[in-house]
Amino acid sequence: MAAPFKRIDDQDVVYFASILQAHQLIRPNSEVFGAYTHDHTEDLIFSPDLVLLPESANQVAAILKYCNTTNIAVTPRGAGTGLSGGALPVYGGIVLSVERMNKILKIDADNYQVEVEPGVINEALQQQLAAQQLFYPPDPASKGSCMLGGNVAHASGGPKAVKYGTTRDYVLNLQVVLSDGSIFWTGANTLKYSTGYNLTHLMIGSEGTLGIVTAIVLKVLPLPKYQTLLLASFPDAVDACKAVNGIFTAGLLPSVCEFVEPLAFQLSSELTGIPFENNPEAGAYLLIETDGFDPETPERDAEAVYQVLETYGCINVLLADSEEKKNMFWRLRRSIGEATKKGNVYKEEDTVVPRATLPQLYHGVKEIAQRYQVRTVCYGHAGDGNLHVNILKDQHTDEFWNDVVKDAIREIFYLCHELGGTISGEHGIGWVQKEFLPIVMQPNQIELMKGIKSTFDPKGILNPGKIWK
Amino acid sequence: MAAPFKRIDDQDVVYFASILQAHQLIRPNSEVFGAYTHDHTEDLIFSPDLVLLPESANQVAAILKYCNTTNIAVTPRGAGTGLSGGALPVYGGIVLSVERMNKILKIDADNYQVEVEPGVINEALQQQLAAQQLFYPPDPASKGSCMLGGNVAHASGGPKAVKYGTTRDYVLNLQVVLSDGSIFWTGANTLKYSTGYNLTHLMIGSEGTLGIVTAIVLKVLPLPKYQTLLLASFPDAVDACKAVNGIFTAGLLPSVCEFVEPLAFQLSSELTGIPFENNPEAGAYLLIETDGFDPETPERDAEAVYQVLETYGCINVLLADSEEKKNMFWRLRRSIGEATKKGNVYKEEDTVVPRATLPQLYHGVKEIAQRYQVRTVCYGHAGDGNLHVNILKDQHTDEFWNDVVKDAIREIFYLCHELGGTISGEHGIGWVQKEFLPIVMQPNQIELMKGIKSTFDPKGILNPGKIWK
Repeated sequence: MAAPFKRIDDQDVVYFASILQAHQLIRPNSEVFGAYTHDHTEDLIFSPDLVLLPESANQVAAILKYCNTTNIAVTPRGAGTGLSGGALPVYGGIVLSVERMNKILKIDADNYQVEVEPGVINEALQQQLAAQQLFYPPDPASKGSCMLGGNVAHASGGPKAVKYGTTRDYVLNLQVVLSDGSIFWTGANTLKYSTGYNLTHLMIGSEGTLGIVTAIVLKVLPLPKYQTLLLASFPDAVDACKAVNGIFTAGLLPSVCEFVEPLAFQLSSELTGIPFENNPEAGAYLLIETDGFDPETPERDAEAVYQVLETYGCINVLLADSEEKKNMFWRLRRSIGEATKKGNVYKEEDTVVPRATLPQLYHGVKEIAQRYQVRTVCYGHAGDGNLHVNILKDQHTDEFWNDVVKDAIREIFYLCHELGGTISGEHGIGWVQKEFLPIVMQPNQIELMKGIKSTFDPKGILNPGKIWK
Repeated sequence: MAAPFKRIDDQDVVYFASILQAHQLIRPNSEVFGAYTHDHTEDLIFSPDLVLLPESANQVAAILKYCNTTNIAVTPRGAGTGLSGGALPVYGGIVLSVERMNKILKIDADNYQVEVEPGVINEALQQQLAAQQLFYPPDPASKGSCMLGGNVAHASGGPKAVKYGTTRDYVLNLQVVLSDGSIFWTGANTLKYSTGYNLTHLMIGSEGTLGIVTAIVLKVLPLPKYQTLLLASFPDAVDACKAVNGIFTAGLLPSVCEFVEPLAFQLSSELTGIPFENNPEAGAYLLIETDGFDPETPERDAEAVYQVLETYGCINVLLADSEEKKNMFWRLRRSIGEATKKGNVYKEEDTVVPRATLPQLYHGVKEIAQRYQVRTVCYGHAGDGNLHVNILKDQHTDEFWNDVVKDAIREIFYLCHELGGTISGEHGIGWVQKEFLPIVMQPNQIELMKGIKSTFDPKGILNPGKIWK
C-alpha cells in the first residue's frame, strides 16, 4: 500500500509542541505509546508517528489545519474499544485522542438535555445522570470504558437499544471541527429539526472520516427505577430466536432482549470467576429485562414475556431476584466479548437483519461455519435482529484465516443482505469490513459517500483507509 | 431572476408522451393544471411548463435522466400541503407528482415494518394499519391529505411526535432515484444501521433536492388502544407554556401536548361549524392526550397531568368523555391552519426551541408582533418546543408585508437561535424561509450542503431554488 501522506518529522513535532503542552504529546519512545497502536479489533497493530491529546475544540482546529496544510493523516480515537478497526492509524501520521476532552459541560434537567465532550466515558455520564433521576440509554457492552465520541462515530447501540434506540436517537446537536480547522454546530438543541440537510445525522456513524466531534448535545429521559431480569434457556437455539420475535408480535417491549450461546456464557464465567451452571440441555439463552417507573410494571411485563417463552419451548427461567444477582448476570453478559477473544484470535461480525428473520440468519451462520469447519460463538441484541458472530481461529493456518475464512464471512454477509439486513448494525465498517461493503452497496452509492467525503475533507486526511476500499 | 433551465418545448412533450400514458401528462390547457401551480404556502403561485404523474421508479428514472440531459428543472410534489413552498416550481420546467404512486406495497406485521410508495396518504396508511392493531405515529395536521413522500421530504412531525418522534424516527430504508436516473436503496430494513454514511437520514428532510424517493420502508408499532383527551385553559399564555414543561419535568410523557390560542380555536370553530365555547378568561389552551394499552393507564396519567396543570394556574379542564367529543376536539385542532389562513393573507413560521424556553419564545413573539403592529395566531406542538406562528396581513400594505414584516420574522428567528432553537422544526426551509437560513447557519455549513447537493445532483435540476439562496 502506497502511503500518500507525509510522515511526521522534527519540524512537525516542534509545531505541535508549540500549540500543546508537553503532556499532550505522546512520542514513540513513551511507555504508553503502544496503547495507541491497536484497538479492540482482532490482533491488528498499526503505529502512528505521534499521538496528540488536545483539550479543546480550538486545539483540535489548530492540529487539523496544520495537518491539512502539510498532508498528514489524522486518525481520531476515543477509548479504542471499537471492533471494526476505526481507530487504527493505518497510514501512520497522527492519532488524535479525545480522551482529555472528558468534561460533562452541562446537565440541563429542565430540558432533558446534556452537553458533553467526546472523551466522556459512557458509564460516567450514566452515573452522573442517575443521581438526578435521569437516563441516557445507549449502553454498549464496553460502557465502562468506551467514550461518547466513539459512540457517536459508530452510531453505537447496546442491550437497551431494543426499547430505547441507539446513540443516533439521542444526539441533538454536534460541534464539529472540519479538516480545514473550521468549527461549527451541525444543528440545534431541539427535539425536532427540519432546517436543511441533517448534518447531525450525517456525522453520526461517519467514523471520524468527515470531521472531529468536539462537543455533543444529547437528549436524556426520566430514569425508570425498576427492572426485572430473567434468563431463559431453550434446547434449540433456533427456537430461542423464534421466541424473540414472539415477544414482540405479542405486543410486548422488553428493555433488553439478548441472545447468548452456552459457550459464550461458559467463557465469560471462566474469565470473570462468576459461577455459571450451564443447563446441559440448553442450546441457547435469552437474557430479558423489563423496566418501569413502579415495581409492578416490570414484574407484570416479565410474567407476560414468560408466557410467550413457554410457547416456544423454553425449558427453564432463572429470575435475578436481587441486585447482586442482576449484577452477576450483567457482568457475565458484558464480559462475553472479552472472554471470547481471550486466548484466541478471532474475527467479529456484526450481522443485523429484520428481527423475524433471525432464525434464518442463525441457522445459516451455523451451516456456513460447519461447512468451513470454523467454530463460532454467537450472541447479541436479538431484539434488534443484531447478532454478533465471533469466528475463532483455533488451530487454523494463517493462510486459511486470512483467505478462506473471508469467503465464509462473505457468505454470511450475502445471507444478511438477502434477508433484508446489512453487514453492521452498531460496530461500523472501519478497516476490517470495508472489503465486504460492495455486498450491500452499489458502486454509485459508494461514489455518493466519496463525494460527501470530498466535500467535508477535500484532501482526505481524516481517518484515511476506512469505510471503503 | 435569470432562469438557467431550458423551458419545455414540443419535442420534450413528445418524449414524455412516449414513456408515459396520456393520463400521466397534464398540460397547461388542462382544467386541473392550476392545482399544480401552488401548494399551501401563503398566496404564492408559480407555473410549471408541464406536470408528469409517473407510476413507477423506472418511469421516474426515465424522466430524470431526460431532464438531466436536457437541463430541465424538476420540482417533486406530493399532495402539495407543504408550508414552506417546497413544491413550488419556481423555475418552471416539470412538476413531478408522485400522487399515482400510491400503493401500500407490503404490511409485514411479523417484523413491524411496512413498505409504501411515496404517494400514499398518511391517514390511509394509519387506517390500514389500525385494522391490524398496528400504529404509524407521525400525523401532521394535514394527515387526511398529505403524502408519505412529502412527510419524508420535510421530516414531518405532528401532535404525536412529542411521545413517538417524527417521520425520521420511523424511516428504515428508502428507494431513491438520482438525477442521472440511477436507482438505489439507501440502507437496510433493520432497526440498527452502522454501514457507512447514513444516506437514509441525509435524504429525510432534504426536500426533494437530492433525489426522488420512490419507495419507503417504515417501522410501525403496536397500536395503543386507549386515549384520554383533555383541554385545559389558562388565563396567562406564558403560564400555559410553563405548564407544558412542568408536565415533562414531573416525569410524565403525554402522547399529545398542544398549545392553542383562543383566537385559533374561534377561527377553527367558524370554519368547521363545531361549537366552541371560549372561556372568556382564557389566554391559552393546552390540548393534552395520554394513551396506553389498557383503559386505566391513560386515565391515571391524565390525572397526574391534571395535578401538574393546577399548579401552573390552570382554571378549567374539559374532558373529552366520548369518541364524538374527541373527534370534535381533534377536528377543531386540525382545522386551525386552514381556518387561520382563510380570508387572510398570512406567513407561517415554524419556530422550534428547547422545550423549557417556550415561555421566552412565546413572550418574545408577542412583544415583536406588538412592536411591528401585526396580529399573530400561535399554536402548535408545545411538548416539542415547536410553535407555529401565523402572522396575518390584515390591512397592511403589500410593501409593509413584503419588506417590513420580514424584519419582524428575522427578529423572531434570531430569538429562536438565541434560545438554542432553529427556524424550522417540521415544515422545512423550501422557498420562503431560505433567506433566513444564515441566521442559524454559518456560510461554511451552507457550503457543505451545496457540496452534498453537487454530489447527488451535479446539474442542480432537482427542486432548484430551494433551501439556500
